[in-house]
Amino acid sequence: MHPLDEAIALRASALGDTRHQFMGATHPAYANMVGPFGGTTAAQLLQSVMLHPERLGEPVALTVNFAAPVADGEIRFVARPVRTNRSTQHWIIDAHQAQNDTEGVVATATAVFAVRRETWSDVEAVMPANVPVPEAVPRMPVKGMPAWPQRYDMRFVEGAFPAVFDEQEQAHSRSILWVRDEPERALDFVSLAAISDSFFPRIYIRRRRRALIGTVSMTTYFHADSALLAQVGTRHVLGVAKALNYRHGYFDQTGELWSPEAQLLASTHQLVYFKD
Amino acid sequence: MHPLDEAIALRASALGDTRHQFMGATHPAYANMVGPFGGTTAAQLLQSVMLHPERLGEPVALTVNFAAPVADGEIRFVARPVRTNRSTQHWIIDAHQAQNDTEGVVATATAVFAVRRETWSDVEAVMPANVPVPEAVPRMPVKGMPAWPQRYDMRFVEGAFPAVFDEQEQAHSRSILWVRDEPERALDFVSLAAISDSFFPRIYIRRRRRALIGTVSMTTYFHADSALLAQVGTRHVLGVAKALNYRHGYFDQTGELWSPEAQLLASTHQLVYFKD
Repeated sequence: MHPLDEAIALRASALGDTRHQFMGATHPAYANMVGPFGGTTAAQLLQSVMLHPERLGEPVALTVNFAAPVADGEIRFVARPVRTNRSTQHWIIDAHQAQNDTEGVVATATAVFAVRRETWSDVEAVMPANVPVPEAVPRMPVKGMPAWPQRYDMRFVEGAFPAVFDEQEQAHSRSILWVRDEPERALDFVSLAAISDSFFPRIYIRRRRRALIGTVSMTTYFHADSALLAQVGTRHVLGVAKALNYRHGYFDQTGELWSPEAQLLASTHQLVYFKD
Repeated sequence: MHPLDEAIALRASALGDTRHQFMGATHPAYANMVGPFGGTTAAQLLQSVMLHPERLGEPVALTVNFAAPVADGEIRFVARPVRTNRSTQHWIIDAHQAQNDTEGVVATATAVFAVRRETWSDVEAVMPANVPVPEAVPRMPVKGMPAWPQRYDMRFVEGAFPAVFDEQEQAHSRSILWVRDEPERALDFVSLAAISDSFFPRIYIRRRRRALIGTVSMTTYFHADSALLAQVGTRHVLGVAKALNYRHGYFDQTGELWSPEAQLLASTHQLVYFKD
């Protein structure tokens, strides 16, 4: 079993309203410096809808709010369909953990699912040109890194994670990289949700200086349907990320995830807390 | 009283848990072709937190999901603080309307509020250069338009709403415009949330062809705090918007709202349903 599939494995809860509740847990293979990688939490929140018997269609939008640090251990997910229309469905999902003897919300999410139809389609964003194929780019060394970056094969074309924090401020924070699960795993919505959170915090690229950071909110729009994801299979996708603005303790960054055939699979945005 | 202040006026509800509930209504001054302008609904959802006695700090992130068409009339808002930390607070808000004799959810939202501190700050996004001052650009004619665009003074530098839907496909959908409330109103978080939804659907600019559209989810990151918004006052802000991808019934668009002094006040993203 792939470690991501282990990490997102949820079981129906025997407590309360079992239709909406799922139990999951953090997984050591996706550990961050403290607690789990936020991308796996996002994937678990999405998975609780994917597994829900009342689900309609496939995800088109997912917003995850990281409300409190997630501790290593069990997480209780509650996924509720709050509105089902003919071709769209709206969800509110929250994640709970026992902390200091009381249970608290550690994350909330909203998701929009939809049954899609073929229409006029076009990519208006521009995929970076002249990017070498993944085989021509060395993999980022992961030795000494937390567990989660070791679960990705990242090949930076531009804007790599700094080898040293030399405090040399850069002109911008843009990164271009090939990324896939490590070991290989066929791309699906949950892995794409996790990859959406795999862009390193832009402030590290920009300032090459350590800072305490934490994503507070992340939104991903899924442009791909499952048929397009299946075409990507286990290959790398091209990630592009940049920051827009840093101010008074928060910055935002925006990312694109492209198929090798230049289809925009997802666009993703997040707001990050930082302390300098 | 400014029509926006009338539109976002909420009163405590006498029903149920009065601490979390507020009653509001659609306002004819912000009517769309059918139902209200989504920007006022977003502003009402945010306002329900602004008025809540347990609110901590100021908004930094807001996601609004438009779950069903809002009918003209009363709307019941329920705003719940689901996690309060030392300097951040997470909210889930939903909007309900009686429809066909039963009450249903018409919108959901999540919001992150925060107490901000001064830190290293920088704008990495690039404000368009050589933009003429608002006084040098004619206001968009609003005759024949629904009520809501008449509540904005929009001055397009590029990518105006098409004068005719001649079906001449354009190379891109980028717009640059000066925008402010009409009549003038000092900028605050709720008006900025509404302005975030005032960018016309990119598919109209791109295709110059009519299409049935509806925003399904919108996320706004507030980079400005109330002190910076006060500096803008009643002046125009510069809006920049473009689409990223159109595929199988959905497209996304991203926008920036700049102060005249080149501070990025907010970045905003939305996913829009379309039928061609």
